[in-house]
Amino acid sequence: MATGSRDEITKDTTLCMSLSARPSNIGTRFHNYLYAELGLDFVYKAFTTTDLPSAIAGIRALGIRGCGVSMPFKEASIEHVDVMHPSAAAITSVNTIVNEAGTLHAYNTDYEAVATLLAEHHVSTDFTVAVAGSGGMAKAVVAALRDSGFTAVTVIARNCETGPALARQYGFEWRAELGGLRTELLVNVTPVGMAGGPDADASPFDDAAIAAAETVFDVVAMPPDTPLIRAAAAAGKATITGAEVIALQAAAQFALYTGVTPTPEQVRRASEYSRS
Amino acid sequence: MATGSRDEITKDTTLCMSLSARPSNIGTRFHNYLYAELGLDFVYKAFTTTDLPSAIAGIRALGIRGCGVSMPFKEASIEHVDVMHPSAAAITSVNTIVNEAGTLHAYNTDYEAVATLLAEHHVSTDFTVAVAGSGGMAKAVVAALRDSGFTAVTVIARNCETGPALARQYGFEWRAELGGLRTELLVNVTPVGMAGGPDADASPFDDAAIAAAETVFDVVAMPPDTPLIRAAAAAGKATITGAEVIALQAAAQFALYTGVTPTPEQVRRASEYSRS
Repeated sequence: MATGSRDEITKDTTLCMSLSARPSNIGTRFHNYLYAELGLDFVYKAFTTTDLPSAIAGIRALGIRGCGVSMPFKEASIEHVDVMHPSAAAITSVNTIVNEAGTLHAYNTDYEAVATLLAEHHVSTDFTVAVAGSGGMAKAVVAALRDSGFTAVTVIARNCETGPALARQYGFEWRAELGGLRTELLVNVTPVGMAGGPDADASPFDDAAIAAAETVFDVVAMPPDTPLIRAAAAAGKATITGAEVIALQAAAQFALYTGVTPTPEQVRRASEYSRS
Repeated sequence: MATGSRDEITKDTTLCMSLSARPSNIGTRFHNYLYAELGLDFVYKAFTTTDLPSAIAGIRALGIRGCGVSMPFKEASIEHVDVMHPSAAAITSVNTIVNEAGTLHAYNTDYEAVATLLAEHHVSTDFTVAVAGSGGMAKAVVAALRDSGFTAVTVIARNCETGPALARQYGFEWRAELGGLRTELLVNVTPVGMAGGPDADASPFDDAAIAAAETVFDVVAMPPDTPLIRAAAAAGKATITGAEVIALQAAAQFALYTGVTPTPEQVRRASEYSRS
């Protein structure tokens, strides 16, 4: 295909990139796969940096079109962009920068993806909710729940600073442990169940909590079938996986960078390719 | 081949680039062709900028491996690099930046290429020389002539500021016009004969000067067979073309960035591809 070959890159090829402390290959493979699939003259590459201000100044000075922002740069990027769009402003966290002729626009497609998935899976906003975790992604989830209309949300976090702060910020409750709490929606935003992590074989919610729930949402994307998702599926519960979050937020970034919205089938194939 | 496809770019792929006011495709095509040919996991793209300090700060902050520097950034880059190597220091002009773990090393491969070509073509350093032009590339040529051992050099330039200044800097003579001067080596470093320019069909040296010369060297690379080169070849003179300069200086950049020295045959094919 016309733009599939690396030696056909020209001065007019558009560069997109990502910034994180420890880059993975997922974004690079996802975007380059879709560029080739859709015949777009773009190229994508993950970068890391120890100098965030200069890296973002470089994006502006070099006309790099877009930049995915990951840990630990999501808050620190705010002061270096020009326009905070509602998705980023809602959670004071940037995961996407779009360079419009030198003006840097900031978005948070994680927040948007979580809100979209809650709607697409028809999760009732009347559901009671327990959210495990209080990190950056938990903020995206809790804000998306509130802005989607959920009112009965409890943040579960052992961290007795970030946990109560997150709950308070969005008008919700906090508990250090789930204990006997039973809710209709369970959301995991901790690293429990993540491949390669210390709790790869564990579940953040016990069988009794899963049995009492209607829907189980795990933001962990690697693997998509975490112990929590497997237990929920075995118990006949509706599930939403981290793989859906990653694919949807990456597709939203893709559309912001290129102006082209890939089909769900294209996103599915790019997502599979990106993990292979 | 393993690295020929754009969707096989990963987080570990090394980016090289160029900076100029008006990027061409030549460098991008030259380097990407050789990356594919040699199976190197690199990718190259030309950029422009209106903010040179931030662009160079971005190269450092993003770990971009190498950057070709063209007009009008060759002198302005000096204050932003860390180490001026002899080729750049000799003419206070940078055309190549190599990023060694955050330390920016500056070179001038134009200067090196001119000196190499004078040696490879066995041009006698006893020859009298006329150099037409007094811009940045003329400085590279005049410095290379002096450092190669040429002593009887006249700078021909209508600009009565840059012309005498360049000649004086390297201990040579200056004339506003060639007039009746006859030399054994003629070197054109003006835009006369350049495709698309106002003097595309003209020659900077007249037939009498060509007839009196032994060797004619035209730094204009597009086209390689300028009116001057065609006239010199028709008169049976030895010639050195701008295509040779560009290919040699680009091969030197390639070796600095990748640590791999392409063969002359590979350089020839990449050079042909870069102009196609």
